[in-house]
Amino acid sequence: MSDKIEVLLFGLGAIGSFYAFILCSCPRVRLTVVARSNYAAVKENGILLKSANHGEHRFHPDHVIRSPSELSPDSAPFDYVVCTNKAIDVDSVARALAPAISGSTAIVIIQNGVGNEEPFRRLYPENPIISCVTWVGAHQPTPGVTTHTTSEATQLGLYAPTSPSAVPSLSTFIDILSTPENPHPTPLTPLAPDALQRTRWEKLMWNCAWNTLTSLTAQDCQAWLRSSDEALPLTKRLMREVVSVAHASGVALRESLVEEQIARMQGLGAARTSMQTDREMGRRMEVDVIIGTVVKGARRVGVDVPVLETVYALIRAVDGLAGAGTGGGAGAGEVRGRM
Amino acid sequence: MSDKIEVLLFGLGAIGSFYAFILCSCPRVRLTVVARSNYAAVKENGILLKSANHGEHRFHPDHVIRSPSELSPDSAPFDYVVCTNKAIDVDSVARALAPAISGSTAIVIIQNGVGNEEPFRRLYPENPIISCVTWVGAHQPTPGVTTHTTSEATQLGLYAPTSPSAVPSLSTFIDILSTPENPHPTPLTPLAPDALQRTRWEKLMWNCAWNTLTSLTAQDCQAWLRSSDEALPLTKRLMREVVSVAHASGVALRESLVEEQIARMQGLGAARTSMQTDREMGRRMEVDVIIGTVVKGARRVGVDVPVLETVYALIRAVDGLAGAGTGGGAGAGEVRGRM
Repeated sequence: MSDKIEVLLFGLGAIGSFYAFILCSCPRVRLTVVARSNYAAVKENGILLKSANHGEHRFHPDHVIRSPSELSPDSAPFDYVVCTNKAIDVDSVARALAPAISGSTAIVIIQNGVGNEEPFRRLYPENPIISCVTWVGAHQPTPGVTTHTTSEATQLGLYAPTSPSAVPSLSTFIDILSTPENPHPTPLTPLAPDALQRTRWEKLMWNCAWNTLTSLTAQDCQAWLRSSDEALPLTKRLMREVVSVAHASGVALRESLVEEQIARMQGLGAARTSMQTDREMGRRMEVDVIIGTVVKGARRVGVDVPVLETVYALIRAVDGLAGAGTGGGAGAGEVRGRM
Repeated sequence: MSDKIEVLLFGLGAIGSFYAFILCSCPRVRLTVVARSNYAAVKENGILLKSANHGEHRFHPDHVIRSPSELSPDSAPFDYVVCTNKAIDVDSVARALAPAISGSTAIVIIQNGVGNEEPFRRLYPENPIISCVTWVGAHQPTPGVTTHTTSEATQLGLYAPTSPSAVPSLSTFIDILSTPENPHPTPLTPLAPDALQRTRWEKLMWNCAWNTLTSLTAQDCQAWLRSSDEALPLTKRLMREVVSVAHASGVALRESLVEEQIARMQGLGAARTSMQTDREMGRRMEVDVIIGTVVKGARRVGVDVPVLETVYALIRAVDGLAGAGTGGGAGAGEVRGRM
């Protein structure tokens, strides 16, 4: 048996690489990472993190695997399974992680969206679930190389309902990511379950606006806001629709958040979003957990959200092109011109 | 003095080339064309039209010029100035055409949108204005070469208010485009001013939906409709908003048009739109005359049009990228990743 804390991290994109670095920095942690598209690069060279806050480091997780199915039955049981993958096909990922999850494993979700915990709760009803909202700004220009800006904050807490035995899971997870146990601590803010879900909705509102609008227009957030005198009012209207859905769903999102998030974005540089990059690269986007959840929630509670519905329909169409080239192959019966 | 009917055609895109062919086929017409991006090709080789209805023809307009400013003061006065250019900067085009417009010149507008007649009426208050709605499906894959499908219909009439002396202008224009005077006639439907504006709105509704949705999603109309179960309801809601604005503006668009236009589109092949092609080519799009007019009209009459406003804001942002590469240059302070 290991006296280390065994951690499996699933998804080595920019965010995953950032948290892998923080986890690896803790002497008590033994880290296994599941790398997919960048497996070869990470297996060969480890991960290079260039961080404005933490400096430049090349580090090597203890194990690099391609899939949870590679885990043997006599692998050490994992104390934590940390999901930093893009939140697409969340149900199938929850199933695929079964070989890594024992009765006492805490599941950590570091993803955009709301509702990401539900597939895990259904499959693993007794396990602690630690839900995290991340405000880390990072991107991975080439496989295994991640650049991190100065944006760095994590809000986290237990997903309710939960048993009292889950509490130590959360406090140990906080310990291994932060001072004094970790020489490269990352700022953490623990939240009670209610505050945590409200915070997930705050991040959701941010993503609902910026991620979708940048990917539909191929503009960064500032360029979008400058694009016409329509852009700012439209962004606010979209955000107010999210507030309405939250309220009707019992989440006390404050109205002033709209102006706060606009001001926050206006204070940033030429901010891009992950969804914008995903569209540019022809990759699937986090459509369901970000905007799909809100539109479906709105219908459930009977709130009219025409701006969100418009953006949702458009982004689903764009998402459908992922991996399919530019789409719209022209047939013989095609009609073009001024129609 | 010429005993010919002198016609100047401005804008030799796909639609312009189609009408140039019809006009050139009439023995009574002497045609001067203003070609811009395709000037060299048209000057050298004339225009090649490949039409599913009319066959394949290479034809040479009588004169090819680059700009109305090339007209000398002793040019024959034009009986008709036909605008088949893309309806962008309509005010400056109306001014640029001054050298071609004398007191008796009839101005013919064959363009998408509503309100295109207004700059001409302001500058040339006494001239007859013939306004046309075209349902010609054509595209110009290379300069000077136009492919025309079987889609072919023109609805036209006098723009009101107009003087009785304008009536002969309209009837002569109909004569030179159609049987028996023209061996390659195109089907025409004359409309009274009220019906004409209603028809412009019908085409506007068509363009408001299909042109914007295809250019935002990079999908042809059918692929858009198939993209998700959101697409069809969203398209109908957008169209119903156009109907509401028309009603509040005194234009009696019938509600059933929504279902009719959806059915008409579903019956077509993989239909693309000019705006979609414009976006792909990084060209300016007909944003103002198509969707801008409706959104501004809605605000004037106090109708809430959230779907149109969303689409308008997005398409203006995309239009702002025309000719500017992909936009969103990444600065040093850039934030990427999961934000």
